[in-house]
Amino acid sequence: MKKFINDPGDVVAQALAGLAAAHPELRVDPDNQLVIRGDAPVRGKTGIVSGGGSGHEPLHGGFVGPGMLDAACAGEVFTSPVPDAILAATRAADGGAGVLHIVKNYTGDVLNFEMAAELAGDEGIAVETVLVDDDVAVQDSTWTAGRRGTGATLIVEKVAGALATEGASLKDVAAIGRLVNERSGSFAVALTAATTPAAGRPGFDLPDDEMEVGVGIHGEPGRRRAKVTRAHDVAALMVDAILTAKPGGGDAIVLVNGLGGTPLIELYVLFGEVSRLLGERDVTIARSLVGNYVTSLDMAGAALTVCHADEEILRLWDAPVRTPGLRWGV
Amino acid sequence: MKKFINDPGDVVAQALAGLAAAHPELRVDPDNQLVIRGDAPVRGKTGIVSGGGSGHEPLHGGFVGPGMLDAACAGEVFTSPVPDAILAATRAADGGAGVLHIVKNYTGDVLNFEMAAELAGDEGIAVETVLVDDDVAVQDSTWTAGRRGTGATLIVEKVAGALATEGASLKDVAAIGRLVNERSGSFAVALTAATTPAAGRPGFDLPDDEMEVGVGIHGEPGRRRAKVTRAHDVAALMVDAILTAKPGGGDAIVLVNGLGGTPLIELYVLFGEVSRLLGERDVTIARSLVGNYVTSLDMAGAALTVCHADEEILRLWDAPVRTPGLRWGV
Repeated sequence: MKKFINDPGDVVAQALAGLAAAHPELRVDPDNQLVIRGDAPVRGKTGIVSGGGSGHEPLHGGFVGPGMLDAACAGEVFTSPVPDAILAATRAADGGAGVLHIVKNYTGDVLNFEMAAELAGDEGIAVETVLVDDDVAVQDSTWTAGRRGTGATLIVEKVAGALATEGASLKDVAAIGRLVNERSGSFAVALTAATTPAAGRPGFDLPDDEMEVGVGIHGEPGRRRAKVTRAHDVAALMVDAILTAKPGGGDAIVLVNGLGGTPLIELYVLFGEVSRLLGERDVTIARSLVGNYVTSLDMAGAALTVCHADEEILRLWDAPVRTPGLRWGV
Repeated sequence: MKKFINDPGDVVAQALAGLAAAHPELRVDPDNQLVIRGDAPVRGKTGIVSGGGSGHEPLHGGFVGPGMLDAACAGEVFTSPVPDAILAATRAADGGAGVLHIVKNYTGDVLNFEMAAELAGDEGIAVETVLVDDDVAVQDSTWTAGRRGTGATLIVEKVAGALATEGASLKDVAAIGRLVNERSGSFAVALTAATTPAAGRPGFDLPDDEMEVGVGIHGEPGRRRAKVTRAHDVAALMVDAILTAKPGGGDAIVLVNGLGGTPLIELYVLFGEVSRLLGERDVTIARSLVGNYVTSLDMAGAALTVCHADEEILRLWDAPVRTPGLRWGV
């Protein structure tokens, strides 16, 4: 295994220390492995907490800051954070108006966030939860009952974060988060498997001429293995899968999201294809991101996320944000 | 070879088409393979043009926009753009106050930018050139006499771009660019080789337990091969090499730059180590970036860039910028 690490057991803790050094505007709680807005809790604002296993950076710690998350919990690589850490994040985010949990739909995350929400409730902190399950590739999967949560998490965090910044209630912030999730679909294709520091070798075997169609962000199996095809065909199967599960036309927020090991030049080739294909289906790319946002360590691969957006979602998407991973308007 | 492409010969053209689709605020000239600010030329502003071989994205096309470049020329992968394309970019960027060429020190780039500058001069466009040669690893290299140009290019483009935006003369914009280059040093370590679409296989062989110390962004040999060591030791040899070639203390702009295939979590581990080591050498990290900015396709590896910054350089670094790859304050 070739990685820039000191010890496989310390990767997450040391990456958080590095994040703290790079971003003095954030606080890191090393004991609970939390990334927290420097000025949290913001009095009177609905707090927003997300988190999950590490290895998907910049998700979630890279999305902490004004306009997005108040705190993020980093579990070990591909491992859910524990309830106590989520509870600590919830306390750190609570400015008296309650806290929204944004949870990707993996069994461990769901259970641990539920437990943390109960414990927070016992302390008098109101908690609502948005479950993100945008990955249309498979219905159930390793570690997931129902659909997996992937790229739409970023859009939920951004849009809910913007509404919370405007002073909206916990109930309204949760509602917009659920709306974004409902209107979003994602689909990923892997060319290689990720290597976790603990395992030291690729998580699955993929022949030199094959791709995993519908892969999960932990390398969970997709719909099928297929021979690697042209970018046009990859884009077509992503667009088809998403618009079948989440039909719609008009304005969309579109992410072409690298899984970690794929160069930007290939993501732009894919985006060009996606753009043409969506145009043929009467979907207008109103906003877009192309890059590594919701990753799977060093996996070569890409995911498409389409969020059918209304005016309110677009307005909130455009609102100022200042985080390590997303920054505009501030 | 597994890549999201349609044809190895069309990658750059199709990636530019994708960039155009994702960024309607930019113009793409497909014939010359240029990325141009939508509102270029900006009347009375010193224009700024950079460019070079593709495969280093987001450099350079991803740094076109207000506060940074007016136009960027994309050569084929790891191949210099031709003089006619650079000339077209220079014309597109010229608002009557002359144009600065920011050129990474590779023989092909140097010759082609020189020829384009002469042709532009014949048309009455004043051109100055900043040659970027920040890579302290080796003195001469494949395709380079002198030191190679790498990560500092981003800082030169940002700082010169900011000064040009304030209305400074071509001479002053060139001077600040040269100052940034003079005060910057970079050093890269590769864990794997990049695979170009044309070659279809890794550009060099690197055993499973070795790293290339001082690698270039096209996979050019560095100082030596070594067994892969801990992140701490990798950071130490980067910091030592840079501060030996470019000694200095006080404020610095520090980039921990992924070469394409290395996950963000590892870059943050490295940044934590770099931060401690620079602190011991009385270098203060005044500003920083951690991520994939000057890449080498899918190469796993990382580079450190340190720019010893004065107040003016920091002020210009902080100035608003709005490009696909860097965006703040707008």
